[in-house]
Amino acid sequence: MLAGIKTFIFDCDGVVWRGDSLIDGVKETLDYLRKDLGKRVFFVTNNSTKSREQYLGKFTKLGLDVEAEEIFSSSFAAAAYLEQTQFAKTGKKVYIIGEQGIEEELALIGVPYLGGPSDKAKVADMSPGSAMPHDADVGAVVVGFDRHVNYYKMQYAQLCINENPGCLFIATNLDAVTHLTDAQEWAGNGAMVGAIRGCTGKDPIVVGKPSSLMIDYIVDKYGMAPSEICMVGDRMDTDIMFGKNNGLQTMLVLSGVTTEEKLLAADATSQPDCYAESMASFMA
Amino acid sequence: MLAGIKTFIFDCDGVVWRGDSLIDGVKETLDYLRKDLGKRVFFVTNNSTKSREQYLGKFTKLGLDVEAEEIFSSSFAAAAYLEQTQFAKTGKKVYIIGEQGIEEELALIGVPYLGGPSDKAKVADMSPGSAMPHDADVGAVVVGFDRHVNYYKMQYAQLCINENPGCLFIATNLDAVTHLTDAQEWAGNGAMVGAIRGCTGKDPIVVGKPSSLMIDYIVDKYGMAPSEICMVGDRMDTDIMFGKNNGLQTMLVLSGVTTEEKLLAADATSQPDCYAESMASFMA
Repeated sequence: MLAGIKTFIFDCDGVVWRGDSLIDGVKETLDYLRKDLGKRVFFVTNNSTKSREQYLGKFTKLGLDVEAEEIFSSSFAAAAYLEQTQFAKTGKKVYIIGEQGIEEELALIGVPYLGGPSDKAKVADMSPGSAMPHDADVGAVVVGFDRHVNYYKMQYAQLCINENPGCLFIATNLDAVTHLTDAQEWAGNGAMVGAIRGCTGKDPIVVGKPSSLMIDYIVDKYGMAPSEICMVGDRMDTDIMFGKNNGLQTMLVLSGVTTEEKLLAADATSQPDCYAESMASFMA
Repeated sequence: MLAGIKTFIFDCDGVVWRGDSLIDGVKETLDYLRKDLGKRVFFVTNNSTKSREQYLGKFTKLGLDVEAEEIFSSSFAAAAYLEQTQFAKTGKKVYIIGEQGIEEELALIGVPYLGGPSDKAKVADMSPGSAMPHDADVGAVVVGFDRHVNYYKMQYAQLCINENPGCLFIATNLDAVTHLTDAQEWAGNGAMVGAIRGCTGKDPIVVGKPSSLMIDYIVDKYGMAPSEICMVGDRMDTDIMFGKNNGLQTMLVLSGVTTEEKLLAADATSQPDCYAESMASFMA
């Protein structure tokens, strides 16, 4: 199988690391795939709270030698979508529900933004007769995971989407839950996006997994066929589905949330093309 | 038409009052309907921030003589649903996303609750390894409009709905926008419910308009046929649809958000059975 594959796309949590710990054998496997076999590798995460640069810091801290261009965080995906659609040329701004990762990615492509961490403590004046002012130049609302989501941000996003003609509604992802800590599941960006969906009646453009945007970007930019790409992940319902929906080869690793028992019990349509204990199995 | 109608259900905002001002002729019309014609009247509002008792205070302040039993706020509807399903017998508690109205209604039916205004300033500990504790005895989450919605409340609700077996998810209403002030539209409870939907993947039980719960309650309790009830409202898409979906007679009044032009331009299926300038037209 390895022979026909030119590129590997790795999910991060449960594949490369668990929380803040590198998974055994990852460093050696990446070296082997790149240096010995000449494969290209990418890393993809739906987490939007960090930018590519911030992720690069995490990879480096874990002793992995990775380029920023190899990292596809959903914060980057949001910026890539705006670049693709030449948003900067409109002269409009972005309102952010989300954290620093989105701010950094927008700054890199020269798109002005407001909201995000700056609106953390803001409270709308709801006294009789009052209206919350909003910027008529906001041409897109980007919604990513936001630990400090509040009513002010929801109302600001609602006003932009409902009252600014043509305003885009972009979601980094729709994940119901996320793994902020290993100890439990945490409400994910599905909550923030659901809030804006619920007060606007509109559906977002999704840029992270399972949207095809990142695959289209890689296929376009590096001129590869989807069948030459293998998606490696630890989740059947996101990573493997994402790969299958986009015509990629798929590999499940058991180093994350899916057990072999769960994998074998799943129905045929959701099975990966192959599976392995962990990334270290590539070396075996 | 009046002859066949035994009961009138009035929407409040745009029909009885606008913000804090009584609409002209409402007092006289209510007296006429009740005293001269012997009709029964009810008032229905999707606003859950106040309880029946608090609404009664508003009616009294505006000089209207109304009984608490005639008021159906969606906060009351949530409590009525829990009563109907004998929730109190389970010994379980309710987690509230919402305001004082829901707390007061739950207190009246003897159901213990937590969350709501008390969780306004709470912040989850998201440091490595930490888990947010939640009460395994929560058997229902009630989601109503909440100016102080935050990530803590979303995560608490997510944990209860996803981890407490059989935990109910009840929404007072799904209104996308609400009229906190006359000056603009404000993100409504659709935002709060959307957030919980988005992080649980579950659909709520809706107790306010356009759910039939309130009509079933009135039909049951007072032994009336739906065809003997007339719904009077100012919104085609909520009040009139609510009436039509439940087999009621419908009347649109032009004292709220719908203009005669908009009414006449709407398609035939959404037309009310009749329309009038305002409630005062009953007297004409």
